[in-house]
Amino acid sequence: MSSKSAISIRRKSEVKGAAPPCPPSRANPKPVDPMDLAERLRAGDRRALARAITLIESTRPDHRPIAEALLARLLPHSGGAARIGISGIPGVGKSTFIEAFGLYALERGHRLAVLAIDPTSPKSGGSILGDKTRMEELSRAPGAFIRPSPSGGSLGGVARRTREVLLACEAAGFDVVIVETVGVGQSETAVADMVDLFLLLLVPSGGDELQGIKKGIVELADLIVVNKADGDLAAAADRTRQAYANALHLLRPTNPDWQPPVLACSALRRLGMEDIWERIAQYHSLMTANGRIAARRAEQARAWMWSEIGETLLARFRTHPTVRGRLKEFEAQVTGGTITPGHAAGRLLAAFLGEE
Amino acid sequence: MSSKSAISIRRKSEVKGAAPPCPPSRANPKPVDPMDLAERLRAGDRRALARAITLIESTRPDHRPIAEALLARLLPHSGGAARIGISGIPGVGKSTFIEAFGLYALERGHRLAVLAIDPTSPKSGGSILGDKTRMEELSRAPGAFIRPSPSGGSLGGVARRTREVLLACEAAGFDVVIVETVGVGQSETAVADMVDLFLLLLVPSGGDELQGIKKGIVELADLIVVNKADGDLAAAADRTRQAYANALHLLRPTNPDWQPPVLACSALRRLGMEDIWERIAQYHSLMTANGRIAARRAEQARAWMWSEIGETLLARFRTHPTVRGRLKEFEAQVTGGTITPGHAAGRLLAAFLGEE
Repeated sequence: MSSKSAISIRRKSEVKGAAPPCPPSRANPKPVDPMDLAERLRAGDRRALARAITLIESTRPDHRPIAEALLARLLPHSGGAARIGISGIPGVGKSTFIEAFGLYALERGHRLAVLAIDPTSPKSGGSILGDKTRMEELSRAPGAFIRPSPSGGSLGGVARRTREVLLACEAAGFDVVIVETVGVGQSETAVADMVDLFLLLLVPSGGDELQGIKKGIVELADLIVVNKADGDLAAAADRTRQAYANALHLLRPTNPDWQPPVLACSALRRLGMEDIWERIAQYHSLMTANGRIAARRAEQARAWMWSEIGETLLARFRTHPTVRGRLKEFEAQVTGGTITPGHAAGRLLAAFLGEE
Repeated sequence: MSSKSAISIRRKSEVKGAAPPCPPSRANPKPVDPMDLAERLRAGDRRALARAITLIESTRPDHRPIAEALLARLLPHSGGAARIGISGIPGVGKSTFIEAFGLYALERGHRLAVLAIDPTSPKSGGSILGDKTRMEELSRAPGAFIRPSPSGGSLGGVARRTREVLLACEAAGFDVVIVETVGVGQSETAVADMVDLFLLLLVPSGGDELQGIKKGIVELADLIVVNKADGDLAAAADRTRQAYANALHLLRPTNPDWQPPVLACSALRRLGMEDIWERIAQYHSLMTANGRIAARRAEQARAWMWSEIGETLLARFRTHPTVRGRLKEFEAQVTGGTITPGHAAGRLLAAFLGEE
């Protein structure tokens, strides 16, 4: 088993053997066998899952084809989880909520994976420890798997890797996958675009404190939960819940099958989890029965393909030598109003496409 | 003057003369002189403006460089209008509102252009008549200029041309430009991305009838107006106004400089226009003074450049022979879950970039 898991460059035992048969890289003599890794991952081997994720998240170009081969093996076994996105401003108690909700799900016999999207997370592995510390009890539970955000890179890159890790977790048998967003940049939209249900956490409030919620986020929610409905804040939580229920009724189209419920809970005291769980289960069975989850996933996959195509094309464009040399100047002229955006675009495109 | 305005292929007098000195096209012997057209447009010649717009909207590749040259001449003289986007579901009374609001603006000495964004509008010129019929009084007023949506094409293409027409109208001295959207597809977002202020029209309602408003549109609004606040509906209009004022307070971040007002009016009876006008003027002077309009326009121009680049690259991608041949099959496999979106994107990109 160990001889085939050589994607870690730290396994010295593999380096000191005979010269590798294939030449690519001396530091990484034995390429991982994606078939074997997939098999072990599906059999429930945690280390295999962790290695698969490391491989998927790797930015080394020679790792990419292996990751693709692995994902091709896993894809037929993916799709079996309830995919739940969770967002909320800092201070809303996201970690406490995920811990309380996750432990409730484990009690009911589910297996839970927690992923995160944070395009600002640093390159160090420190955030793993951070995530495990802030969800201490959950991280020790055998049925749970907590994985921090892939580090660094563009939101598109981070989201792509998280989507693929989600597939790997499903293939490993996790039937509830939570994708948490830190609420930076467009990360909520990226998360909403990879899950079946988007849950927005709120704090009790008169309204004015909610400045951290960005435009359009409330309208992404399939379920809203007001946290901290305990002690002094219980009454305020109920008012907030009621106000949002009224507002949602006004502000978004009535889905014929689903009016997003607004609930309250206390993650700290682990109260209200049953109600939340029931609503999510109700949503999931309803949207599975009427085909909406299947349709949403198909559309997400299509959009994901196109966003990868678009991002790659733009990345190529930006790194084209002529474009790179002129871009700053053109952009300044466009924002300064001295040339039209159409003209600037035309000139840069002509350079990129070799049609000048 | 007439000898220089030869972009219309219907001007027979120009065709029957001597053979054209430059060879490009026999049907279009004398190319328009963009310098001359710009001068006449700026002097207030309505026919010159109409020709400029026809040129800008033309899909003929040989017209594009002339349009670009024209826009380059006009650009330094653009930017002088209050740019107002107006949206609302069908039946909200958009035309009646624009007519009432426009006539009020004319009374106050302004010159008003009304543009539209409708990616679904047919290729025929019928919609010009349609627009003029539905805003009969405004269309006859000397200070007003009504132009229907460029016909056909993608939303991106339609929006691009409308943005350029907006610049031309400003150069022609119109100091209020309304861009109306039919609310199809992403047209509200496209309009919000080219104006200084986005006005959302609503109908009086208990809430349930508002299904036509798409997600996120309410949160784009800088000003909300409940129309039809007259007769039987006056009380309902006031309740709707109050409910939205409450909801907005909860659902969007408080802009330190601007809390979007929610007003009521009766476009039919031309009541409430003064209040709406005052709020728009207040917004405009506030946002001009604090530099937010300048910053918004600079960002819009930058985003417009990038959206043109992105769209052109994707259009090239889609029409690449190999991509075109395989796209359908890959897309079906992606939505069917048999290959990952990343894999499909990689394969198609390799074909497009010649790196297979």
